[in-house]
Amino acid sequence: MSKIAVIGTGLIGQGWAAVFAQSGFDVALYDVSREAAERAVQAMDARIADLVEFDLIKATDAPEISQRSSGAASLEAALDGAIYVQENGPEVREIKEEITQKLDAIAARDVPIASSTSGIAASRSCAQVAGRHRCLVVHPINPPHLIPAVEIVPTPWTSTAVVEAANELMIHCRRETIVLSEEIDGFVVNRLQGALLEEAFRLIGSGIVSAEDLDTAVSDGLGLRWSFMGPIQTIHLNAPGGVADYVERYGKMYRDFGIRYSDGADWRQVSRDKLEAPLNQRTPVDRIPEAQENRDRRLMALLRHKEVTQFARSLGNAES
Amino acid sequence: MSKIAVIGTGLIGQGWAAVFAQSGFDVALYDVSREAAERAVQAMDARIADLVEFDLIKATDAPEISQRSSGAASLEAALDGAIYVQENGPEVREIKEEITQKLDAIAARDVPIASSTSGIAASRSCAQVAGRHRCLVVHPINPPHLIPAVEIVPTPWTSTAVVEAANELMIHCRRETIVLSEEIDGFVVNRLQGALLEEAFRLIGSGIVSAEDLDTAVSDGLGLRWSFMGPIQTIHLNAPGGVADYVERYGKMYRDFGIRYSDGADWRQVSRDKLEAPLNQRTPVDRIPEAQENRDRRLMALLRHKEVTQFARSLGNAES
Repeated sequence: MSKIAVIGTGLIGQGWAAVFAQSGFDVALYDVSREAAERAVQAMDARIADLVEFDLIKATDAPEISQRSSGAASLEAALDGAIYVQENGPEVREIKEEITQKLDAIAARDVPIASSTSGIAASRSCAQVAGRHRCLVVHPINPPHLIPAVEIVPTPWTSTAVVEAANELMIHCRRETIVLSEEIDGFVVNRLQGALLEEAFRLIGSGIVSAEDLDTAVSDGLGLRWSFMGPIQTIHLNAPGGVADYVERYGKMYRDFGIRYSDGADWRQVSRDKLEAPLNQRTPVDRIPEAQENRDRRLMALLRHKEVTQFARSLGNAES
Repeated sequence: MSKIAVIGTGLIGQGWAAVFAQSGFDVALYDVSREAAERAVQAMDARIADLVEFDLIKATDAPEISQRSSGAASLEAALDGAIYVQENGPEVREIKEEITQKLDAIAARDVPIASSTSGIAASRSCAQVAGRHRCLVVHPINPPHLIPAVEIVPTPWTSTAVVEAANELMIHCRRETIVLSEEIDGFVVNRLQGALLEEAFRLIGSGIVSAEDLDTAVSDGLGLRWSFMGPIQTIHLNAPGGVADYVERYGKMYRDFGIRYSDGADWRQVSRDKLEAPLNQRTPVDRIPEAQENRDRRLMALLRHKEVTQFARSLGNAES
């Protein structure tokens, strides 16, 4: 069985180990603190038991999955035979650089060295690394084993083969990948979150709405559709003629809110150049009514799911 | 039984009728086209059957709920005895103004006249209305009977009593209300959506990411937590010391993305003035680890829900 090295065994490293072990890989967990690595291995059992409880893993598979993770006594032992390295060190540029240098010196030729960093573009920590062609960011959302989305971010030097290998591995591990064409600060996920947070802070700061009510606008509003349908597909279904029609109908309204940036996007042009073809391929305009019905059925299933979950929680007297 | 008048019987009006009928109100549906109103009444049966199918209504309650909606032959008949009016006319200022004038002339004294408008601030359509103190926006998200969030937006003239009456009615109808302190273009929901869309259009337009992958970043990433926990509670749980700690740790990172507006919010000040007290009351810092565990259990339940729903859909060969 193939082996993956997880370097740094905090919550992110532990989540990655659960992802890889579930997909049949042996996982070597390494941390500068040997105790931390051993604790991480032990913590896996509780994590896997949770996944069994929620029917995300078969109970009969759990013992084998648990056994796939083990602590490594040294970086050399962790990397020996590994086909992929996921690094989860501290978010400090100098430390990232030092770790990456070491990993590159030891790992077998062309094995991808992926960083979980959210804040440090890999180009800033691997420019001086001999094997920088195999370094990239593979960024999870916390907790990695419970949120499928993963961002794959090449540096200017990352080879296409390494990007493809990382993408294929992630798809094999049932991750939903977001492949960036080039490095950008914040990648995609945190930039989207940041844009929404900035508007949220403005609205709350100006006294228009309370923090609690703003949360409601998402948790009982926008977030429902977004939990199974992205924001572009959402607007594609919200005008009879699809996304192009939506931009024509509502683009001016959004512009008038004054939330565009100085270098704001031209929505019409983006829609023409980048959205209409893929969206109309996914859902042709003449099938939008059917897609709306399917969306509404997903919403009803989700509402029922939330009712049942909240009822179960209220019985357990748990706190949100 | 109390009666509510629903004026304008397109999809939004029909959704509102389902909301009110489920909560025990008689609903009078009025449209300038008598045929449209009758079609809307007939369409209710299919809508209620769907809600029964998803266990959102008891099958034994369905016949009574269906019978609560009826078409009204005139505006006078619709408003006779109504304790609340929900208007869903075309999004054209002059038409809104004319309808509001008529409603105000006929409806009993002090009955709230609520508009479902998303684009036209009520102050622009009711300034000349004699009873403007009872006019306001009660803005649903489409479809109204499936998305609980509702925005309540007073004009400068709306009385506190009318805002409170509308809010209480909505809570009685199991809506999750977002009460704005004053009118602002786009209200809260569409401003949050607009901020996220603007960043999405920028990222897709610049070729950093495809529309499909951007949708994945939300539907398999940010949207999962947001379907049961708002963006402020989300960040409160993403730093050991809660929201204040989150802003200290990551505020600069977000600022460096360059997605702030010219009149951007001071996150630290907003956090101090408006977020720390309510968030720490909802989830004290020393209970954050427990709240994180609860969040993860909600995520696992949601993942399982999505698996089951998608499997059921693939059996039905339905399209997303």
